[in-house]
Amino acid sequence: MTDSPLALLRAELAAQGLDGFLVPLTDAHMSEYVAAYARRLEWLTGFTGSAGSAVVLPGKAAIFVDGRYTLQVRDEVDPADFEICGVPQTSPGAWLAAHANAGATIGFDPWLHSRRELDLIRRAAPGVRLVAVAANPVDRAWAGQPPRPNGPALVHDLAFAGETHADKRARIGAAIAAAGAELGVIAALDSIAWAFNLRGTDVNRTPVVEAFALVAADGAATLFIAPEKVTPEVRAHLGEGVQIRAYAEFAAALAELGGRRVLVDPAGSVTAISDALEAAGATLVLARDPTVLLKAQKNPVEVAGTRAAHVRDGLAVSRFLAWLDREAPGGGLDELAAQAKLEAFRRESNLFRDLSFDTISAFGPNGAFPHYRSSAATNRKLAGDSLYLVDSGAQYPDGTTDITRTVAIGTPTPEMRDHFTRVLKGHIALAEARFPRGTRGGQLDILARQHLWAVGLDYAHGTGHGVGSYLSVHEGPQRIAASAAAAGIDEPLLPGMILSNEPGFYRLGSYGIRIENLVLVVEDARPGDIEPMLAFETLTLAPIDLRLVAPALMTPAEIAWLDSYHARVREALLPQLAGAEARWLEAATQPLERALAAAA
Amino acid sequence: MTDSPLALLRAELAAQGLDGFLVPLTDAHMSEYVAAYARRLEWLTGFTGSAGSAVVLPGKAAIFVDGRYTLQVRDEVDPADFEICGVPQTSPGAWLAAHANAGATIGFDPWLHSRRELDLIRRAAPGVRLVAVAANPVDRAWAGQPPRPNGPALVHDLAFAGETHADKRARIGAAIAAAGAELGVIAALDSIAWAFNLRGTDVNRTPVVEAFALVAADGAATLFIAPEKVTPEVRAHLGEGVQIRAYAEFAAALAELGGRRVLVDPAGSVTAISDALEAAGATLVLARDPTVLLKAQKNPVEVAGTRAAHVRDGLAVSRFLAWLDREAPGGGLDELAAQAKLEAFRRESNLFRDLSFDTISAFGPNGAFPHYRSSAATNRKLAGDSLYLVDSGAQYPDGTTDITRTVAIGTPTPEMRDHFTRVLKGHIALAEARFPRGTRGGQLDILARQHLWAVGLDYAHGTGHGVGSYLSVHEGPQRIAASAAAAGIDEPLLPGMILSNEPGFYRLGSYGIRIENLVLVVEDARPGDIEPMLAFETLTLAPIDLRLVAPALMTPAEIAWLDSYHARVREALLPQLAGAEARWLEAATQPLERALAAAA
Repeated sequence: MTDSPLALLRAELAAQGLDGFLVPLTDAHMSEYVAAYARRLEWLTGFTGSAGSAVVLPGKAAIFVDGRYTLQVRDEVDPADFEICGVPQTSPGAWLAAHANAGATIGFDPWLHSRRELDLIRRAAPGVRLVAVAANPVDRAWAGQPPRPNGPALVHDLAFAGETHADKRARIGAAIAAAGAELGVIAALDSIAWAFNLRGTDVNRTPVVEAFALVAADGAATLFIAPEKVTPEVRAHLGEGVQIRAYAEFAAALAELGGRRVLVDPAGSVTAISDALEAAGATLVLARDPTVLLKAQKNPVEVAGTRAAHVRDGLAVSRFLAWLDREAPGGGLDELAAQAKLEAFRRESNLFRDLSFDTISAFGPNGAFPHYRSSAATNRKLAGDSLYLVDSGAQYPDGTTDITRTVAIGTPTPEMRDHFTRVLKGHIALAEARFPRGTRGGQLDILARQHLWAVGLDYAHGTGHGVGSYLSVHEGPQRIAASAAAAGIDEPLLPGMILSNEPGFYRLGSYGIRIENLVLVVEDARPGDIEPMLAFETLTLAPIDLRLVAPALMTPAEIAWLDSYHARVREALLPQLAGAEARWLEAATQPLERALAAAA
Repeated sequence: MTDSPLALLRAELAAQGLDGFLVPLTDAHMSEYVAAYARRLEWLTGFTGSAGSAVVLPGKAAIFVDGRYTLQVRDEVDPADFEICGVPQTSPGAWLAAHANAGATIGFDPWLHSRRELDLIRRAAPGVRLVAVAANPVDRAWAGQPPRPNGPALVHDLAFAGETHADKRARIGAAIAAAGAELGVIAALDSIAWAFNLRGTDVNRTPVVEAFALVAADGAATLFIAPEKVTPEVRAHLGEGVQIRAYAEFAAALAELGGRRVLVDPAGSVTAISDALEAAGATLVLARDPTVLLKAQKNPVEVAGTRAAHVRDGLAVSRFLAWLDREAPGGGLDELAAQAKLEAFRRESNLFRDLSFDTISAFGPNGAFPHYRSSAATNRKLAGDSLYLVDSGAQYPDGTTDITRTVAIGTPTPEMRDHFTRVLKGHIALAEARFPRGTRGGQLDILARQHLWAVGLDYAHGTGHGVGSYLSVHEGPQRIAASAAAAGIDEPLLPGMILSNEPGFYRLGSYGIRIENLVLVVEDARPGDIEPMLAFETLTLAPIDLRLVAPALMTPAEIAWLDSYHARVREALLPQLAGAEARWLEAATQPLERALAAAA
């Protein structure tokens, strides 16, 4: 019998003289999705979700996950080894305060935690001593730890990026100077990808390459990247304005910055960076990563690209939905087969690069978990009268997509149609919103919920997240969520931002409903306006299941929106379809009234 | 020629060896509305608005007001004496940094500023030295300063309060203990009025009495109040659980608290209190005044009282509107005469105690200023085709009211009716909202704006403020405002809270529109609900001008709300009216369709 990872880690902690250790799920760039070598939490606990952390003490250990993973964590983690704790109800700090001995020495890897996070733990557990380790004990204990990904950096062509990296660096440098700094650290991988017009294959689902950067106020930059990733093409692309140094030299380079004023993002960078700068005698200028707001406002080339990507992606999704309508009545389909087929349709495009996240393919009761992932153990047949929910997206060089459709399998109940229609009415209200410049996403959130609230229903997730351009499917700062407003981190929406519009409803034990399109923030000046107004342009193009619409609940304006949206879908996709697929699209996108008459 | 207040103050500053002085508009309780003696800003500058501050230097001075007072300040303040500055675009700190000499000694009265406010100034103007003065130089320079008000404290009967002060103090004490303190300072006058079931006449429009209190964790309290205010009745009312000491002894009492843990509200109390406690060796526990959230949730007796007060107040307003419809066509009315008549109708009730704020009586272009106050200089005749806006309220022992109605004078233009109807649709959407427990006011704000936004219009104020029970017409923490959400101070609405619902639209140079009712947050459980839901009950009862409604813009559901609201108004008020007034009310509250038919 081999030792468990927990036992191996405890042995390593004892060898290093530590009483405990913090195991987060991130990398040195504070990434949400990480490469395999950084899935230390999964190695230790078995938990495969995308957010969580663990604390290990000699006699006890605990894993901390949020509400999305309450059920999954119980399937994957042995409660005999790890106490299962929900955040924010509890926290690693509070747990340490309750379980660690007074004066215990608890190690942490300074390349995996922000200062803010450590401060919270220190405040909650003043009796323990947190110490930075030089070598992560998990990496020493984990015999089969995958190597760092070594794929090359890839040039993101100007035809997709729309702005040279020299111009971007000049704007980033100006922002750094405006913040009162001489140079800035760029640590987030999607920020680096955007700033240098680079992409990569280091992380599944997000086309980034592992690197750090220092950008000076004049836009001159140093990129820290493993030498084997720098092809001659990349070197030529980066040109003279960008000095290239090895990824491993980054810490040493920070030590050279004594006496300089250096911008560091306190939320988006690890404490090791701030620690190294302070040790060198640099002055920290704490401010948000200056690429964040620049990257969020897509330029005209990126906007044209995302429109093209959405036609391409909508075609694949529509062909999948046609196939589903044809095959589902046979009763032989299941969740895994359906998601494989959807991926196959997307792969038919030679511009397909990757999925943008793991597909959620959920039938019946499985749909009630907003972050469900199907597995051999949970896979359900698409049989009986219920709803199939599929949330998926793709990475194309001209844009990132994310779409959810909910489809009737068999005969939907009146309750399913009522709830689907309320979700749809919320989706439409948000899609049609006009709002003055300065409006924050959180202000709009209720538009998507109001018709559910009217009958005492709600959904326990935000209404919209930001989306990148051939980058992260979750991108800030834009979002549409009341929680952001409550936390005081809600920011005005700006033209060029892309967000999801995804209200839903989940009936535990029965089914889930979600209707998700991506939308683009656009200027919307009309005669008579006094305020400068913004609006949303819906990007996603695929039919919404008319069989689930309860027409009595729809206003004429809502029906007009739905019919006009379907006309757009038809116009964009029909020229590329033939035969049965074309006939299916024509039926799926006909005016609601005609569809009802046909069904009657 | 006598010296100006500014010259007198400068002489006093020189005598005290100060290079400058801060003159806020508040009192030692951080009140929004203050007694005459505390209107130091008005004495110094002539400015009569309810919010602002001044900074005086030897050669320069400035007054700072927010957007509500941009126009009024120019009428009232001599720009030769005071530079007129808008906040938040500029601030006293930024102005000091630009104009004060390095090392200048700037005085402030520690009984008139929170620490937060002083910290902001210190951060903005690190080059000056802020020093607390022992005697306010304005009080020394102001020869005719009114004395402190010396009216008696008044018992607020249990029949109106609904809970004994002993029970309230027990709950306050428990909250103080829960915050980790042994006792707490209650400094806000409305908090003291609520906690001790006392009222007073020390401040216009708000029935409070000047006092401080210390409450222990067991609910035992010391009330600091001028001895002449304590009648035998008040003494008997306060009983054994409340020790009475002189108002003037409050500072000395703080000095007795060495070694104790004392709760202090950092936003609602002046620095002198924290300074005295720290000097005595007490430990400050910074937390919100524990009465705030208790006071905001009205108990069943207060709820019954506010309903009765709104019938009474609605009757006075409706009689005024009937009178206005009768008299306005003669062309002889003006703003001041109208507001006097409205007050006269309210005074006919023997339960009338005061207005709850100075009436806004505004015709035509004057209505475009949301905080307009009519004066001899601005008074307009109600003549020609435009809109009359009247925003007013009263204090009754069972409730505080606040209502705005907008009325057609002559023939309204189609544009006026369009905009009025959009404001009304927003008002109705908010009035009809259902929302889950935990919803914050800022989430609901867009409901009131959406129909204006649809045509590029907006209003530059919040949608709703909290209202007290025979207390402040502006009461926190509840509010309905996106700005609160942006500032991270937006809190969940709770059953029993009273708020205003007051969307508007203002066309500069032409007219103003506002429709304001008070609403009560109530539990609203219905069959089928999954979430515990809340809703609003509209309290205010007076007709909304049907002549201003454009029916083509209204949905059937909105018309149903309006008709049903008017039926409620008629049912509540008609039994108390006779003759022409009764006939007017019947016409003013008839179903919209019938009113249109009658007008056609």
